[in-house]
Amino acid sequence: MKIAIINGPNLNLIGSREPQIYGTETFDSYFDTLRLKHSGVDLIYFQSNVEGELINFLQQTDAAGIIINAGGYSHTSVSIRDCIASMNKQVVEVHISNIAGRESFRHESMLTPVCIGCIFGFGLTGYELAIQYLKSAV
Amino acid sequence: MKIAIINGPNLNLIGSREPQIYGTETFDSYFDTLRLKHSGVDLIYFQSNVEGELINFLQQTDAAGIIINAGGYSHTSVSIRDCIASMNKQVVEVHISNIAGRESFRHESMLTPVCIGCIFGFGLTGYELAIQYLKSAV
Amino acid sequence: MKIAIINGPNLNLIGSREPQIYGTETFDSYFDTLRLKHSGVDLIYFQSNVEGELINFLQQTDAAGIIINAGGYSHTSVSIRDCIASMNKQVVEVHISNIAGRESFRHESMLTPVCIGCIFGFGLTGYELAIQYLKSAV
Amino acid sequence: MKIAIINGPNLNLIGSREPQIYGTETFDSYFDTLRLKHSGVDLIYFQSNVEGELINFLQQTDAAGIIINAGGYSHTSVSIRDCIASMNKQVVEVHISNIAGRESFRHESMLTPVCIGCIFGFGLTGYELAIQYLKSAV
Amino acid sequence: MKIAIINGPNLNLIGSREPQIYGTETFDSYFDTLRLKHSGVDLIYFQSNVEGELINFLQQTDAAGIIINAGGYSHTSVSIRDCIASMNKQVVEVHISNIAGRESFRHESMLTPVCIGCIFGFGLTGYELAIQYLKSAV
Amino acid sequence: MKIAIINGPNLNLIGSREPQIYGTETFDSYFDTLRLKHSGVDLIYFQSNVEGELINFLQQTDAAGIIINAGGYSHTSVSIRDCIASMNKQVVEVHISNIAGRESFRHESMLTPVCIGCIFGFGLTGYELAIQYLKSAV
Amino acid sequence: MKIAIINGPNLNLIGSREPQIYGTETFDSYFDTLRLKHSGVDLIYFQSNVEGELINFLQQTDAAGIIINAGGYSHTSVSIRDCIASMNKQVVEVHISNIAGRESFRHESMLTPVCIGCIFGFGLTGYELAIQYLKSAV
Amino acid sequence: MKIAIINGPNLNLIGSREPQIYGTETFDSYFDTLRLKHSGVDLIYFQSNVEGELINFLQQTDAAGIIINAGGYSHTSVSIRDCIASMNKQVVEVHISNIAGRESFRHESMLTPVCIGCIFGFGLTGYELAIQYLKSAV
Amino acid sequence: MKIAIINGPNLNLIGSREPQIYGTETFDSYFDTLRLKHSGVDLIYFQSNVEGELINFLQQTDAAGIIINAGGYSHTSVSIRDCIASMNKQVVEVHISNIAGRESFRHESMLTPVCIGCIFGFGLTGYELAIQYLKSAV
Amino acid sequence: MKIAIINGPNLNLIGSREPQIYGTETFDSYFDTLRLKHSGVDLIYFQSNVEGELINFLQQTDAAGIIINAGGYSHTSVSIRDCIASMNKQVVEVHISNIAGRESFRHESMLTPVCIGCIFGFGLTGYELAIQYLKSAV
Amino acid sequence: MKIAIINGPNLNLIGSREPQIYGTETFDSYFDTLRLKHSGVDLIYFQSNVEGELINFLQQTDAAGIIINAGGYSHTSVSIRDCIASMNKQVVEVHISNIAGRESFRHESMLTPVCIGCIFGFGLTGYELAIQYLKSAV
Amino acid sequence: MKIAIINGPNLNLIGSREPQIYGTETFDSYFDTLRLKHSGVDLIYFQSNVEGELINFLQQTDAAGIIINAGGYSHTSVSIRDCIASMNKQVVEVHISNIAGRESFRHESMLTPVCIGCIFGFGLTGYELAIQYLKSAV
Repeated sequence: MKIAIINGPNLNLIGSREPQIYGTETFDSYFDTLRLKHSGVDLIYFQSNVEGELINFLQQTDAAGIIINAGGYSHTSVSIRDCIASMNKQVVEVHISNIAGRESFRHESMLTPVCIGCIFGFGLTGYELAIQYLKSAV
Repeated sequence: MKIAIINGPNLNLIGSREPQIYGTETFDSYFDTLRLKHSGVDLIYFQSNVEGELINFLQQTDAAGIIINAGGYSHTSVSIRDCIASMNKQVVEVHISNIAGRESFRHESMLTPVCIGCIFGFGLTGYELAIQYLKSAV
Repeated sequence: MKIAIINGPNLNLIGSREPQIYGTETFDSYFDTLRLKHSGVDLIYFQSNVEGELINFLQQTDAAGIIINAGGYSHTSVSIRDCIASMNKQVVEVHISNIAGRESFRHESMLTPVCIGCIFGFGLTGYELAIQYLKSAV
Repeated sequence: MKIAIINGPNLNLIGSREPQIYGTETFDSYFDTLRLKHSGVDLIYFQSNVEGELINFLQQTDAAGIIINAGGYSHTSVSIRDCIASMNKQVVEVHISNIAGRESFRHESMLTPVCIGCIFGFGLTGYELAIQYLKSAV
Repeated sequence: MKIAIINGPNLNLIGSREPQIYGTETFDSYFDTLRLKHSGVDLIYFQSNVEGELINFLQQTDAAGIIINAGGYSHTSVSIRDCIASMNKQVVEVHISNIAGRESFRHESMLTPVCIGCIFGFGLTGYELAIQYLKSAV
Repeated sequence: MKIAIINGPNLNLIGSREPQIYGTETFDSYFDTLRLKHSGVDLIYFQSNVEGELINFLQQTDAAGIIINAGGYSHTSVSIRDCIASMNKQVVEVHISNIAGRESFRHESMLTPVCIGCIFGFGLTGYELAIQYLKSAV
Repeated sequence: MKIAIINGPNLNLIGSREPQIYGTETFDSYFDTLRLKHSGVDLIYFQSNVEGELINFLQQTDAAGIIINAGGYSHTSVSIRDCIASMNKQVVEVHISNIAGRESFRHESMLTPVCIGCIFGFGLTGYELAIQYLKSAV
Repeated sequence: MKIAIINGPNLNLIGSREPQIYGTETFDSYFDTLRLKHSGVDLIYFQSNVEGELINFLQQTDAAGIIINAGGYSHTSVSIRDCIASMNKQVVEVHISNIAGRESFRHESMLTPVCIGCIFGFGLTGYELAIQYLKSAV
Repeated sequence: MKIAIINGPNLNLIGSREPQIYGTETFDSYFDTLRLKHSGVDLIYFQSNVEGELINFLQQTDAAGIIINAGGYSHTSVSIRDCIASMNKQVVEVHISNIAGRESFRHESMLTPVCIGCIFGFGLTGYELAIQYLKSAV
Repeated sequence: MKIAIINGPNLNLIGSREPQIYGTETFDSYFDTLRLKHSGVDLIYFQSNVEGELINFLQQTDAAGIIINAGGYSHTSVSIRDCIASMNKQVVEVHISNIAGRESFRHESMLTPVCIGCIFGFGLTGYELAIQYLKSAV
Repeated sequence: MKIAIINGPNLNLIGSREPQIYGTETFDSYFDTLRLKHSGVDLIYFQSNVEGELINFLQQTDAAGIIINAGGYSHTSVSIRDCIASMNKQVVEVHISNIAGRESFRHESMLTPVCIGCIFGFGLTGYELAIQYLKSAV
Repeated sequence: MKIAIINGPNLNLIGSREPQIYGTETFDSYFDTLRLKHSGVDLIYFQSNVEGELINFLQQTDAAGIIINAGGYSHTSVSIRDCIASMNKQVVEVHISNIAGRESFRHESMLTPVCIGCIFGFGLTGYELAIQYLKSAV
């Protein structure tokens, strides 16, 4: 069983900037821990700051389950939404922060209606919960 | 460690109505399963159709972690929001359905900004994921 | 054939307050007249000022037809709406006054879309018309 | 006692198009039934697809009670509203479908605030209920 | 010099209905007075309740100056607006009542931006003022 | 194969007014050219400034394909929309100008959602393109 | 002279939670002080977290003056508003905090238009000012 | 009979700036013409760029009729509106340009609902028409 | 202890206009009564119809407590708001009428969020209540 | 004569996904057909999922006519709009589906106002119609 | 070359209040520094808290370049906007703070569209940058 | 000291297209002039039409000061905003045109609130002013 984690813009900075908020562990390092913990799953990881490259990856991946945190594109991208909607896969949306408690333009994600569901506000643990869901559901 | 699951209006009907959607397992029965699976946790359960009784329970419970699905009150209740905001506890919001894909008046929950985070769209499994988060975080 | 009339908040005051508007006949007295007139129907009546108790009654009644005037809750209650939507019954919405001609927050009822239809503005006669409809339709 | 039923645009098609929805009885035939049933009332009927002709009829009729279903003009016609408001008559608004459950531009009728009340969603039976109201009220 | 006064829906009722508001003088009678007072002007008058007939008249008239009170169509008619905009004539909009002090849907007229200007709130005297303007300007 | 072109208000003025914009060819003359060019099609043409007469024509025509440019009624007419929606025919909407680049009240047409599609901005050529589509599709 | 103070949801927590904000004096204790200070007034006190119970109390109390702080229900309750509007009593609205300076959904209270006036932002002293007003006015 | 013309901000520039638009005649000079033409009326004139001074003048003048063009303050001044509403006088609003055809923030005037009526778009002639109305009405 | 009462536009008319509403006592006379009643307080009074003069006074006064009723400027004045926000003083907002029950543009005051609190709807007594608050708080 | 067809995100999937909707013909294959049919035109084709690459292509192409379907970027891309607006070329916008009948965020395209016109709802035939227009117009 | 700096309400307080934010240098003192630094320019300075006096100054000054910071009036003053628009001068708008990051009612300035451009957020340095622009442009 | 100028989509066309507006000097040539004029500063320049590449550059540059003109992305890019907000650098936003005077969707920039300030409307000189600010501030 193959699950892809897709991170959008600025999520490559986790661990290297603002350590007082995000700690000093990089996402790569966190991803290694996830892999160890879920050794029965073929976990892959992709990150890009370019909206279209996220679409390219989504179109090409053969993963059966997708965990997507599209960062800032979540709130405006009709194109990523269309891509998810056309896919025949289980897609879970994750946000590290509780976007409902931030600026109003972050309150809704364009992607949520075409995903199975969403997990927001639990920090990096959100990715872990998404894997647990997909393991039981895919 | 004590965790309370609080369900709002109409969630008492799960399993007894619309079985083609929700199956024939009642929430009580599902709750028994949760308890068995998480035997190290003191799980308690409360349901009411009355907004004020949900507040009464929230004010009085000594649980350290709260999982709340306030049903229809989620979208309008300033009072439940105020109650959660005044509490010194970990509160996770759960919805069974993906509310972002339903009528526009369900897109935002008044409660999310004062909870740690939210888990929407994964059916009853959402409660399970919330317990897993609280076990690691409380 | 059983029909339940459900009245929401402040509708218990009809006949005892503001007699220049509503006359001096109480709803209980009016209900007696309805019963006499429709002796072939098993008419029952429930009133509460508590939103959740209206839901409790709706969930428990075995009436085949429902006439509901949820008063002030009509304009905000997602929970009563959800309850009606999940029921397998004929539900008719009644308002005594013509709500379209009053303050803008009364122009739409959250309940109408999940009822069969609505009858607004005809005073207490609205309940009578609803019974006539249900007698022909249930 | 004279009551006029006024139907607006496209309501002349009932019974001849979309029979799976509206059945195969034309409004003319239904109107004959109404007349037989309410033989004590002088029932007349007018239909037009032209907004201004509906106003012409309203200005000229000597009926004491009016039942109006202005179809699509209900949602935009300030002019029909002005005409009704200037009349010294009992006017009841009827819609065959439950407009509150359709597209948002159908949720409010411009006419309702200047009518006595409205009856929506009960199919052709709505006209019958309106006659019953007018018989008791005019 | 020819000036056409064009009245829209329900303005044919002036003087015959609601005399406590509009008096008992019909518009025809008022129009005779206007003609006498402005004998140097070729005054003509047209009224219709049908939107399209107002357009027909506007397209065909050879009057150099137009005074239009489109009644309820003023607030919604893109078509009358388009017709005025395509004409090479002086058009003045008149309203009998002070529309800015009535319901919000009457506050703006679709026609005003394509007219020279607007006179409202002065009763029938508004037509008189419009003639005075056109006499000095056409 | 029969195709009807239906033009709404003010479109009868093409060629006779504002020649610097629309040229000096009338729509009748342009229609003759279309007929010659598409001799295999039974092309008919109807124009009216009256909203209800457009509905009358739509209800009565036996054309299999419809090309409609409802002019100013496009942006407000629920009634023409209802008429098209109830028809079992191929309907294409055409606008001569690029309505998306004009005043905001012209940006959306009430008719487009119930038509197959829409062609706007290409001048009279839009009618030609619509015929080409209908010839291949009807 | 009898004055009732009515507190809505979460206001029972004053003094027992968040003492750094509200101090350690409970509302009951503060109420005792008010009673001593205004010994000539028959002061009574009611609190509930249930919207409908607030309505029940309002309907039944024989107090001539009412001081109401409906907490979170202030911003959404059409039903409490209707209840106050139907009463023949002096009602003063109080809020402890300055709601105009908080989240936008707290800026307007549904209750203010049907009260005599409002006193917001002065902490518990607001209740004292309301009593002073009622003593001079009732 | 005394009539005061009150001009608000920037209207003192007429005739001295942008002569290609407003011509080279100053308002003072135009006012002299008005006075000659209406010698039977005691015409006075006041202009200020200061909102409060316009209020001061309105409070103190003993004119029976008022013609006000409050310029930019027309669209925002609750205070001038309150002043006019508290006066027991005939007040006519004038605007030189057709404000309905300019930026959207100019479409509504705060003052119109408390004036008798409004005349806009006719250039300086609007003042003349207002005098004619007041002469017939005051 | 020094307290300044500041009244904005049109509040100088109290007692001299509309006596049926405001009585025949002028604010100056009422102010004398206040002074007598609160002889331990150095009460001063300022009124102006000019927004900027209200700001001038606020900047220059050495009063420790301020009671402000900015009249019509309350709803639009960012500048008075900025002035209050930059001051290191106790400021209480008063309105004589219940602004929440009047036109929608009066529902919010720009000043409330930067004041301690507000007292609306109690007539002139509102000033008295504000003094009582300031005496206990300053 | 050179015409470029530019497709935006997800349009590369036509024919390979959701064949029940789009059939099994790929756009490449359809493009070959177009080329054969319009052999006198130098047709070229570009597709990208990256917004900026669409801009790069638009800036660099030497085609005289452009047919653009920017997919999801149509509704948000100020940048593609700016690019088209700065070009001295004939640009036609095409959408395969009838976007007016889908979610509200698809109803307007940012690109339409800077194109000549728009063709939507006719499936792949829309590209064909655009070519026909450009052949006659470029 | 003459340049006028115009400051609106509350900007006279710089340096004398809130020194922790604005420092202890008054604007007068800062203005002296500017004068020394730009000795080739005839720099003049005007400040008022009165909207109309700002307009008076703008109308009368003979400066060729204007730097305006209208403070709180920036967001509401149609009148200052009209004054600037009618002037034949280079006008630059300056704000000390970054208004886009403050309350939403400060996000847009009514003045910006009629100025050449704006400089916001750079503290007092903004005035310096504006002078540099005007020196190169006037 | 190192300062990076970052230009977004379509800004690479300056000087090569629409010379009547932007002149014939390319941005590269203008940049050379800037470098000569500010020889003490290490000025670098980056342009891309791809949103994500602008983010890539922002994440990687070691410049202490940033001048950004994100073109069309300014109005929609949450992602560039997030990137700037997470940086520990001085960022100044520049626009060549006065965006407040163009279409409404250009009035606000998503980036301004997370920059120090903004300079709009001064043509290429805006970049020069930004450098001057950064030289004094970084």
